[in-house]
Amino acid sequence: MEERSRVAPWAPPRAQRRLAELESELAGLGLDEITRLVDAVLAEHRGRLDEDGIVLYAGTNTMSPRARAAHEASLGSRPSMGWPGDKLQTGLDELDVLEVLAPLQVAAVMGGEFAEVRLQSATLANLACYSALTLPGDTIAVLPANAGGHTSHHAQGAAGIRALRVVDLPYDAGRFDVDHAALPAFLRRHRPTLVVIGASLMLFPHDVARIRKACDEVGAFLVYDASHTAGLIAAGRFQRPLDEGAHLVTMSTYTSFGGPPGAAVVTRDENLARRVSTAAYPGLTANYDASRLAPLAVAAAEHAAGGPGYADRCMAGAASLAAALDGEGFTVAAADLGWTASHHVAVDAAAFGGGGGAARLLAEGGVYLSGVGLPGQAPGEPPRGLRIGTQEVTRRGFGPGGMREIAVLMRRLLIDRQDPLKVLQDTVALRRSIP
Amino acid sequence: MEERSRVAPWAPPRAQRRLAELESELAGLGLDEITRLVDAVLAEHRGRLDEDGIVLYAGTNTMSPRARAAHEASLGSRPSMGWPGDKLQTGLDELDVLEVLAPLQVAAVMGGEFAEVRLQSATLANLACYSALTLPGDTIAVLPANAGGHTSHHAQGAAGIRALRVVDLPYDAGRFDVDHAALPAFLRRHRPTLVVIGASLMLFPHDVARIRKACDEVGAFLVYDASHTAGLIAAGRFQRPLDEGAHLVTMSTYTSFGGPPGAAVVTRDENLARRVSTAAYPGLTANYDASRLAPLAVAAAEHAAGGPGYADRCMAGAASLAAALDGEGFTVAAADLGWTASHHVAVDAAAFGGGGGAARLLAEGGVYLSGVGLPGQAPGEPPRGLRIGTQEVTRRGFGPGGMREIAVLMRRLLIDRQDPLKVLQDTVALRRSIP
Repeated sequence: MEERSRVAPWAPPRAQRRLAELESELAGLGLDEITRLVDAVLAEHRGRLDEDGIVLYAGTNTMSPRARAAHEASLGSRPSMGWPGDKLQTGLDELDVLEVLAPLQVAAVMGGEFAEVRLQSATLANLACYSALTLPGDTIAVLPANAGGHTSHHAQGAAGIRALRVVDLPYDAGRFDVDHAALPAFLRRHRPTLVVIGASLMLFPHDVARIRKACDEVGAFLVYDASHTAGLIAAGRFQRPLDEGAHLVTMSTYTSFGGPPGAAVVTRDENLARRVSTAAYPGLTANYDASRLAPLAVAAAEHAAGGPGYADRCMAGAASLAAALDGEGFTVAAADLGWTASHHVAVDAAAFGGGGGAARLLAEGGVYLSGVGLPGQAPGEPPRGLRIGTQEVTRRGFGPGGMREIAVLMRRLLIDRQDPLKVLQDTVALRRSIP
Repeated sequence: MEERSRVAPWAPPRAQRRLAELESELAGLGLDEITRLVDAVLAEHRGRLDEDGIVLYAGTNTMSPRARAAHEASLGSRPSMGWPGDKLQTGLDELDVLEVLAPLQVAAVMGGEFAEVRLQSATLANLACYSALTLPGDTIAVLPANAGGHTSHHAQGAAGIRALRVVDLPYDAGRFDVDHAALPAFLRRHRPTLVVIGASLMLFPHDVARIRKACDEVGAFLVYDASHTAGLIAAGRFQRPLDEGAHLVTMSTYTSFGGPPGAAVVTRDENLARRVSTAAYPGLTANYDASRLAPLAVAAAEHAAGGPGYADRCMAGAASLAAALDGEGFTVAAADLGWTASHHVAVDAAAFGGGGGAARLLAEGGVYLSGVGLPGQAPGEPPRGLRIGTQEVTRRGFGPGGMREIAVLMRRLLIDRQDPLKVLQDTVALRRSIP
């Protein structure tokens, strides 16, 4: 008999099997059993990832220690609607300080004048831009999914919530950037209201100035999604999209930025800022999670404090890891371009059955990441690459030597096909050797 | 010279003055100064509200102690995309348990079969319903703002993000419910795709069955927004909207429900559940905040554990407070209906210059709440009522005796016009007398 999930009977078969198995395990538990189970699950998860794991997810991070110290989760249950001086609720005067400090700090480090900081995710930051600047039925032009164009740029994501028509930008897979030669004619043909650049795999900067020039010819706004690169941009180590011509920068505040989960939208244009602000509140938020503001202000201030810092270490780590993976026999993407100019590294995992299977094998050995589509892979082919971000291992204290040891673990798991449980012991030992 | 804010030069003048004042105070601070300032602000806020305040906000709460113990904020920085058994990232197997437990528990206590639990707010839960069930340009019918129709039901809120046409339902201000006699003809005239009921001031249940009958005549879906009442519904103490005919219940998980900030959408209909699920992911979320799931499962299990509990105490507290306010000379709304059948109480503050001014005066004396529009007040008139929720003071241990003391403090501040700083001392003493 086919197992059918109660939670999501529409999910793919593989998911339904797992769901149905858990549903029967978890049926009929009482309050005390649930409380104990939840505690055990959280402890196990913490142990696996925080204490024993080599975490190479590209899209997440742990907060910087200073930011974490400023995170008071209970604030998230407090109301806060309206501007300082004009709030709906009373008793929130102290939050006014955070509501000024956070946008000022974020705008300054991102090279902007205005920062909208109330949205809970970069997906919603993108949706706020769509809502502020488009009408349903408008066209937006975005990076293809295999070139790292995020789901929220596409019709199945936030662009579909606004009912936009989405077209894929012409892409030059050899240069990991928009196809600049084809862009002007493409934009004249499709007349998009918005062009969205900035990818989920962001090895190299975009030529923003050239893209902006093409946008200006058709009157399109240029949005740069810095969800992955905001920390590098803030540190002045990657590119400066607002200096180079982007109208708006959307960003996650917790990946390379090192702050709390959540997002920001930054611009220099008062009119755009006002429209995005109105889309954020009252459009997409009522009460928002004010607990984010203190760690966000601190994380931004850390970037502003400057000097050779965290962003440099993340990028140096990525360069070391790419070189070490190449030395261990992996096909690291973008070899001819020098592998990476960011904190990301991509590995072609076709030899290991694709990104998904390779990621699962690595996980058995305690190394955690995800598959990713690679530019140039055939449309419809399952994600062929492995996507690596160095931001968390760098935060944990891994330098170039540690990166080389990570490459060795990956070689033993994927190329040598050693027993994952045996490799896991060495992974845990490596992780624990870093204080 | 007019003061112009840098953060939001488009804000109302009163807000700009406050913003500009803070902007000049906060200019040029370095990392260490910002870290210290943020710590001080958080401590001050905690002291004012958590330790010394009588917090009567209707729209928020503190988590139940058991739920709070299960909240591991660091999980919010971890990825989690896709169903258990079919996840994009590896290493998250333990979260699978929470991803099954939370929707099962929430669906069960709300009387549904399916619960979507990934959305960060009830505003987004409403937007997920709009995205799942409407197209831009469709009409939805909602409660008027002065009858507690939430911003997210209206065009300036989430309904506008989906570009919906919004019409106000006919309302019977004397009965605090939809005008049932006028409803059928109204629906025939406007042919809405969705009807949204459930208000921000929710003194009495809706006659859901009767509204559903009228919806069926025009093929409209009925959404019940239980953001305020979810905890009472879960405890079986208010009404059971899904039993009574609502197609979908949207809810906040942190007000009366006592769980973490965030939201859920509950239904019995698999087709609707699938559509809302797809709107939630990949429509409105990518990574979502999995730290919410553990406290959410625990909070739901607390409701399921049943017995005379928290919801009863909240409602008994509201009844006591309404009677005490009446006894102290206030005009409590809905006197002819018995003031309240929920955890909310509304006071007509016209005699004190309206809800906004009265709320500010109460805040000077350490009693925190907000103004609210009252059904029957003139359109365009500033909010005339004070809105009270007993969920937080009940959590803090205030019973009927404590409610009577709160009414006395409010009388001294608003009716006797005693010096707020003098009253504040007694407020703090009362708050601290409750362990």
